[in-house]
Amino acid sequence: MPTTRVRLDLAYDGTGFSGWARQRGLRTVQGELEGRLAELFRSTGAQPSVTVAGRTDVGVHALGQVAHVDLGEPELAVLDRVRGHAGARIVTARGGESLARRLNGIGGPVSDLVVHRSAVAPAGFDARFAALWRRYEYRIADAGAVRDPRRRDHTLWHPADLDADAMEEVAASLLGLHDFAAFCRPREGATTIRTLQAFSWRRDDDGVLVARLQADAFCHSMVRALVGACIAAGEGRLAPDRVAGLRDARARTSAFKVLPARGLTLVEVGYPADADLAERVERTRARRDAAEADPVD
Amino acid sequence: MPTTRVRLDLAYDGTGFSGWARQRGLRTVQGELEGRLAELFRSTGAQPSVTVAGRTDVGVHALGQVAHVDLGEPELAVLDRVRGHAGARIVTARGGESLARRLNGIGGPVSDLVVHRSAVAPAGFDARFAALWRRYEYRIADAGAVRDPRRRDHTLWHPADLDADAMEEVAASLLGLHDFAAFCRPREGATTIRTLQAFSWRRDDDGVLVARLQADAFCHSMVRALVGACIAAGEGRLAPDRVAGLRDARARTSAFKVLPARGLTLVEVGYPADADLAERVERTRARRDAAEADPVD
Repeated sequence: MPTTRVRLDLAYDGTGFSGWARQRGLRTVQGELEGRLAELFRSTGAQPSVTVAGRTDVGVHALGQVAHVDLGEPELAVLDRVRGHAGARIVTARGGESLARRLNGIGGPVSDLVVHRSAVAPAGFDARFAALWRRYEYRIADAGAVRDPRRRDHTLWHPADLDADAMEEVAASLLGLHDFAAFCRPREGATTIRTLQAFSWRRDDDGVLVARLQADAFCHSMVRALVGACIAAGEGRLAPDRVAGLRDARARTSAFKVLPARGLTLVEVGYPADADLAERVERTRARRDAAEADPVD
Repeated sequence: MPTTRVRLDLAYDGTGFSGWARQRGLRTVQGELEGRLAELFRSTGAQPSVTVAGRTDVGVHALGQVAHVDLGEPELAVLDRVRGHAGARIVTARGGESLARRLNGIGGPVSDLVVHRSAVAPAGFDARFAALWRRYEYRIADAGAVRDPRRRDHTLWHPADLDADAMEEVAASLLGLHDFAAFCRPREGATTIRTLQAFSWRRDDDGVLVARLQADAFCHSMVRALVGACIAAGEGRLAPDRVAGLRDARARTSAFKVLPARGLTLVEVGYPADADLAERVERTRARRDAAEADPVD
């Protein structure tokens, strides 16, 4: 049966979810989203499954998560409100757009999961395998920053002052193509070689330290370990110029900790131009190890 | 018994509180704060009560709330960790500072109520009667703004686009000294005459509309009704140049609604210079009606 692929751009507060991946008996983002799809398409009997760019961990938030779902003719007809009409196929673009609105309607007026946008995907698009990079932010309110209780579920409150210059020095020293095994929870058969394309710190208007991290992909716990190394340096417990050496030792270390999920948000996922999507998917799939270890934070 | 007045600067997420004022069987901000004080000073038997600048309503947040509490010698001794020492009185400045840290410690590492600062208050200080003005913000994500689920508990999500220019026109037309009865829930014997010192709109980086409102004091529901009038104009349901006339009719109207508390945050409370505190308190107390209606949002 021919299907139409729809791209979904999502945001969620990770606090009330047991991570992305569907799990029996637990509330997860995938479970919530697929549940809404099943409800929307109940009349067709379809239970569409979604594929995601970044399989966020328990408690991790997202503002720019990307997923895709493949819909058949009956589902598109539901969206176009021309159920059973033979001409449904020509109005799929409109169907794609209305999907976000319908899914948000099921979620209620104030939900912790919002679909920002839905659109029929360009040919060759795959939310997971076509992604070029993932970008995260991590927020830390240290002793000198304003602690805003309204934002406590997406900010780490650190009891001491942190030296932002030392943290920036660590971040800069980690950039580039490296084996990041020292920062990754090991997974059988999965590579830990990654390109860290951006890693920097700034203070926002409240004095909150905000890290910006971008890589082709992150392995499990990598973002939170990278930020942990910065905090160790920011506290004066670890010399900034030692961190690159710890990375190159490629072994887990007690010199820094993996930080809590609460400060972490997946902000954006980058894709190539439409014409290059198919080639990108092919290349990612060919690197089986990379694909396996792919999109977990 | 001589007491020392300590000023507390507070922030809270109003979502989990039934407003400021202590109420039996309900979790309120005052109840939580006084509960922590009672716990801290358990050894002295004291159960200090706090006085606040702005008695926020159910669900209203605060970043710059101000309160005061009067502490006796035994309580100061607890803070100074020189229990029973005759010299306790000379170290009260340090005691004032440590109070915030101790109250936050009781609240736990991630609390919806945080004391940002505590200090021995200057002579004549009274959190409620010495206040010169209160400043609030109200956040609205309309259809074109980014809906950030992480911030859903302190932002109103509005389903349609809003005309920010029309909203600004309404805000500007309401400034100054007026009877705001049309925007206030009536209270017996209480004046509704207020000076609206500032009222303006801006869009933040996410496109979220943020109102800034400042007045000597607001009467009950006034901020949320003022913002409601702006939304009615922003939706095109109410001509901006009609709003000042509705205000001067001094009667409640169905032309606009009182908005939900979730978008509202008390941001700052202003006080005169230390030398002018006593005079300010005297003047506020003399205006009994103003004092009665005083600090509710």
